[in-house]
Amino acid sequence: MGGNSFGNIFKLTSFGESHGDAIGGVIEGIPAGFSLSLDKIQHELNRRRPGQSNISTPRKEDDIVQILSGIFEGKTTGMPVGFIVKNNNSRSGDYSNIKDLFRPSHADFSWTGKYGLRDYRGGGRSSAREHIARVVAGAIAKQMLEQYNISIVAYTSQVGDVILKKNIAGFGPNKFSSVKILTSAEVDSNIVRCPDETTANSMINLINEVRKDHDSIGGTVSCIISGLPIGLGEPVFDKCQALLAHAMMSINAAKGFEYGSGFRSAYMKGSEHNDEFICNNDKIECASNNSGGIQGGISNGENIYFKVAFKATPSIMKTQKTVNTDKEALELNILGRHDPCVVPRAVPVVESMAAMVILDLLFQNKLSKL
Amino acid sequence: MGGNSFGNIFKLTSFGESHGDAIGGVIEGIPAGFSLSLDKIQHELNRRRPGQSNISTPRKEDDIVQILSGIFEGKTTGMPVGFIVKNNNSRSGDYSNIKDLFRPSHADFSWTGKYGLRDYRGGGRSSAREHIARVVAGAIAKQMLEQYNISIVAYTSQVGDVILKKNIAGFGPNKFSSVKILTSAEVDSNIVRCPDETTANSMINLINEVRKDHDSIGGTVSCIISGLPIGLGEPVFDKCQALLAHAMMSINAAKGFEYGSGFRSAYMKGSEHNDEFICNNDKIECASNNSGGIQGGISNGENIYFKVAFKATPSIMKTQKTVNTDKEALELNILGRHDPCVVPRAVPVVESMAAMVILDLLFQNKLSKL
Amino acid sequence: MGGNSFGNIFKLTSFGESHGDAIGGVIEGIPAGFSLSLDKIQHELNRRRPGQSNISTPRKEDDIVQILSGIFEGKTTGMPVGFIVKNNNSRSGDYSNIKDLFRPSHADFSWTGKYGLRDYRGGGRSSAREHIARVVAGAIAKQMLEQYNISIVAYTSQVGDVILKKNIAGFGPNKFSSVKILTSAEVDSNIVRCPDETTANSMINLINEVRKDHDSIGGTVSCIISGLPIGLGEPVFDKCQALLAHAMMSINAAKGFEYGSGFRSAYMKGSEHNDEFICNNDKIECASNNSGGIQGGISNGENIYFKVAFKATPSIMKTQKTVNTDKEALELNILGRHDPCVVPRAVPVVESMAAMVILDLLFQNKLSKL
Amino acid sequence: MGGNSFGNIFKLTSFGESHGDAIGGVIEGIPAGFSLSLDKIQHELNRRRPGQSNISTPRKEDDIVQILSGIFEGKTTGMPVGFIVKNNNSRSGDYSNIKDLFRPSHADFSWTGKYGLRDYRGGGRSSAREHIARVVAGAIAKQMLEQYNISIVAYTSQVGDVILKKNIAGFGPNKFSSVKILTSAEVDSNIVRCPDETTANSMINLINEVRKDHDSIGGTVSCIISGLPIGLGEPVFDKCQALLAHAMMSINAAKGFEYGSGFRSAYMKGSEHNDEFICNNDKIECASNNSGGIQGGISNGENIYFKVAFKATPSIMKTQKTVNTDKEALELNILGRHDPCVVPRAVPVVESMAAMVILDLLFQNKLSKL
Repeated sequence: MGGNSFGNIFKLTSFGESHGDAIGGVIEGIPAGFSLSLDKIQHELNRRRPGQSNISTPRKEDDIVQILSGIFEGKTTGMPVGFIVKNNNSRSGDYSNIKDLFRPSHADFSWTGKYGLRDYRGGGRSSAREHIARVVAGAIAKQMLEQYNISIVAYTSQVGDVILKKNIAGFGPNKFSSVKILTSAEVDSNIVRCPDETTANSMINLINEVRKDHDSIGGTVSCIISGLPIGLGEPVFDKCQALLAHAMMSINAAKGFEYGSGFRSAYMKGSEHNDEFICNNDKIECASNNSGGIQGGISNGENIYFKVAFKATPSIMKTQKTVNTDKEALELNILGRHDPCVVPRAVPVVESMAAMVILDLLFQNKLSKL
Repeated sequence: MGGNSFGNIFKLTSFGESHGDAIGGVIEGIPAGFSLSLDKIQHELNRRRPGQSNISTPRKEDDIVQILSGIFEGKTTGMPVGFIVKNNNSRSGDYSNIKDLFRPSHADFSWTGKYGLRDYRGGGRSSAREHIARVVAGAIAKQMLEQYNISIVAYTSQVGDVILKKNIAGFGPNKFSSVKILTSAEVDSNIVRCPDETTANSMINLINEVRKDHDSIGGTVSCIISGLPIGLGEPVFDKCQALLAHAMMSINAAKGFEYGSGFRSAYMKGSEHNDEFICNNDKIECASNNSGGIQGGISNGENIYFKVAFKATPSIMKTQKTVNTDKEALELNILGRHDPCVVPRAVPVVESMAAMVILDLLFQNKLSKL
Repeated sequence: MGGNSFGNIFKLTSFGESHGDAIGGVIEGIPAGFSLSLDKIQHELNRRRPGQSNISTPRKEDDIVQILSGIFEGKTTGMPVGFIVKNNNSRSGDYSNIKDLFRPSHADFSWTGKYGLRDYRGGGRSSAREHIARVVAGAIAKQMLEQYNISIVAYTSQVGDVILKKNIAGFGPNKFSSVKILTSAEVDSNIVRCPDETTANSMINLINEVRKDHDSIGGTVSCIISGLPIGLGEPVFDKCQALLAHAMMSINAAKGFEYGSGFRSAYMKGSEHNDEFICNNDKIECASNNSGGIQGGISNGENIYFKVAFKATPSIMKTQKTVNTDKEALELNILGRHDPCVVPRAVPVVESMAAMVILDLLFQNKLSKL
Repeated sequence: MGGNSFGNIFKLTSFGESHGDAIGGVIEGIPAGFSLSLDKIQHELNRRRPGQSNISTPRKEDDIVQILSGIFEGKTTGMPVGFIVKNNNSRSGDYSNIKDLFRPSHADFSWTGKYGLRDYRGGGRSSAREHIARVVAGAIAKQMLEQYNISIVAYTSQVGDVILKKNIAGFGPNKFSSVKILTSAEVDSNIVRCPDETTANSMINLINEVRKDHDSIGGTVSCIISGLPIGLGEPVFDKCQALLAHAMMSINAAKGFEYGSGFRSAYMKGSEHNDEFICNNDKIECASNNSGGIQGGISNGENIYFKVAFKATPSIMKTQKTVNTDKEALELNILGRHDPCVVPRAVPVVESMAAMVILDLLFQNKLSKL
């Protein structure tokens, strides 16, 4: 109910608006006795933070997390972790000119219709600034998953028509790649978060062009989850892919989700698509991975991989036509300070949501059998 | 928890295995005083039923719904609706040969890993026969949505490389189509459920070829929801598209979900993608519908449209390689009676899940404002 | 939402009305691999069944449970257990005379106000026949708790002014009793389920008197849970006593709940009430048990004991005054076949609800620490 | 799961420990467009605050609420209300001496057993300081209920053996009292919150005696809910009394709950207990109110009344015996600053929890019928 919570056992309940006092949340389901690193949380927040590079918004926000509960003498206590991230750099004045009109493809119109009023400052709670709470919870989930040797790495795989062609190990059906699995450091080695320097440069060039043209551009984020045990996912409505899809499609600007063979599977025959089982070093595994690590909704021990499509941010500086609350047609010029491409900053958000799903399923799976 | 329930207010909790006594469920959240049509429920079950045509499995199952509670003198009482659909035509003997081995790309391996044992008869609860419970709940949801003039129509839009090219009114960005909205009768006018006769024939031919080759084939289902009020969806984790994605990706064999511009959005600029607001007959609406009827996670009154990719069924009669529980390699010949293409029978399941999501959000939205 | 479910991990969702086709439910959260005894479930249903003795209703109902799913080759599969108990002996005709009037202290008036209509046959879902679903789930929970050596035994401790004075081991603050813990067999040794023959006879005499006078009588059920580990209960809203209170007060006719020192605690000083810790055989325990086995909402390893007050059934054969739906005053003579005292048949229901709470908390507690 | 949330639609998720940075929470389900009074929230917090009078703890805590989200230009936005109350006056030093031992009848032992460690500063999250979050949510619920003319008033009805004998209108079976319903102002007219001056003085004298003796004392809180519509409560597990019992028994130190005739009902015959229906001014109502305003789990329009028993606080300054984590017996002298009787400060907490239950059921009831 209400849509402010995500997860069953490991669960985030978030609150906060873009230009309110703070973004915050409550994280439940962290077992007692875990040594939590605040630095790792702050690191992930820094990866999402605006103003990181010249291809993101020039807004500067510190986004410092304050943990208010649930930790004692450096360890989790089993109690809920309440946290806030203060909103310091909000210039509410920037938004007074959009107070009475509906920005195209923004939440303005539908939210006003739903609630009868809206917090128009920076989009209120419809702002991507809400993702902060997800990143805090996700950073905690990632730390805990490390203990189980599960790693989650996302990266930019497309910006406009620039598409990463390089075969990323762990992503795709051909599972016996000799290349080692992708690391977060490789992804962060450039500002667009694409793990191939040539492609990254083309993406950066495209984003810069688009920005100069006062426009914005879409793209895709791909993600690999490796080191998984067999058994994550709950039949029938909470299949692993269903929860991942829910998680990803709840991220602002997401328009599509696919895992494993994804939309390509529509073209494929069963004999092409099926992943035959083999026995390798006394361990049963799949010879290929079109299943994307999930069969019958449950992880089968192979890498999970998936892709998310993001639309271009609707906040563009080009003049647009719209109407106001009095139903008068008018022209809109958004000023503000916006990202020409949301994809690079969506990378840590995708990882965070994936980490929350996987940790929650890991905990649920502890109860599957006697 | 457990994954057997879907929905918040309008909620289905299902049970049952392919070859157990019955598939059934409990539906909560139906308000008192609604005149429920059992015929409409049975009609939807008949649309999903095996053995409907020569392109589906030759298994004959009656799939007759029995409502056990929640209705009195023809009206709902506000109490939960319990129901069962008996499993009559189960030939457990068919499955004894697969008892100790793992069928490629089936749930066998991952479920055995998770639970330590499995009901191997017809896949147990991992069977698509579980969809029956969804269709019963969905048929009730559809009836209730009719009262609000909301209609949900899905259709087969791709089988293998045969893709429906015809512009279906209500599906796509160009919203001012002169063609009337698609009806369920048009969809059901052929056995593949594609609302274009030429394309339908090509699809049927392809499915027949594939079947003769003892193989199977994937495809896509598209869906249009029309007549929607503004306001459906709950920020931030239960955005309308997030719940639809969850619903669709929980259907067996689903591999991808996109709504509105979907994966195409990755190529688009903000200036191309944004849907400008106009005032038409004193009503604010969008000039285009790349948003797919959802902005900021909330329905904006335009048609919602989305597409789901399905893989080919893994049950093929071609010889395949696999291993057994003793880790021995062997060859598998699935006998059984299986659909060469699951897509036509997935159409009512897609509609059912969509109806459950939309009705649940409609009820939740009654509480949005004073 | 809706009130048809109880529990978080071990969870019952029930359906069914007194005179509908069946009472049934879905039980989730049973781990795979448990050998379930159907006989033990039927035994508990028989303990609740009407017509057991001459102090209960003469209605004869078989109440045979049919398990429809979740068990394969004698073991639980991790899938939900769906079940039904058919309603065979319903005489709807008995109720036609009460169709348009409101029986005093029954659910008729408030339910009609809430739903705009009601299933008047035997009270519909407000009937105590709904308890059947609880007993099925509770009987499964009790079987699983046996594996952890946890036992739950309830008994009749009061009928009208006949109060059990005998000190029952395990119930009360004085924990070092030399008497062994009460068994279910001792409780069932007489028809009123009071583990003291003299008191039991007085209770039976009182119930017979009351019945002859066409009246009914209230009473209390006490319950002892022994063999508990430390750690059951979830702070702060799901304290062990809060869930037990919720469970007990959801049983029809329950009017009060107390645990440990209960209402007596209002008279007591801290110095009298506090349970000092001692070390006994290298194990820390309490010297007394005013806490009733729960401190800070969490089980402390001592016996949990509690008491539930039940009112007299409102179905009495004496002439009563009431009004009908047309607001006309009239006299009511309930015919039907009703229990003069609900307490003996409430004993297995109290045990069932307690078992569901304790097993659910046991599963939740598996996730408390690393 | 986890026990940090209460409610279904109107829902509080709380966090925070006694000596952490803050107590806080997230409140969901507040409809958009409500003019929220922060003064009314602060007023209720002041009623719960320590140091109000010479019969409560001398600790001085400001307990100032900060609302962080969900309000814009004075009105609720439909978004979650996040809030914190900072912990200013925590003297962690006070607790270092109890770090390694288990205080009798405190949460120390059971929580350490459950989590493997504990935040020993002031009891951590087991402290009654956690009630702050409930009072914030309850104060919001009370404001909203005022709009529906529903009032909730609790009062101290017993301290030790001093029992309020005066007949409080609205509490008890005799519903046609000529006395007007109790007001919060009358309750707050003395420091013990008993609405009868003579009895209040006896209670205050008793508390002062007990305090001088370094001891503490139990008592009861009674509560009346008036102005209710018919229809609140959800059959079968979320009956109105079941949710009230859950709510009340989740308050620290609560040991018993009864509503309407309560434990007295065990002595009563059906003919005595039944509330006959009459028609009064063209409105159907009950001639008496043994049912306590709830029949079949659903409110019937009469006043709901109930009583909660509280034990004496276990923090007494008398020397007590206990053991430490090394299982050594020792003597304990609690210093700290504690209430000799928790009952007067529990009054606003009882009201808060009741308000949360009733508002939540009111919202749920909006969905009961078409």
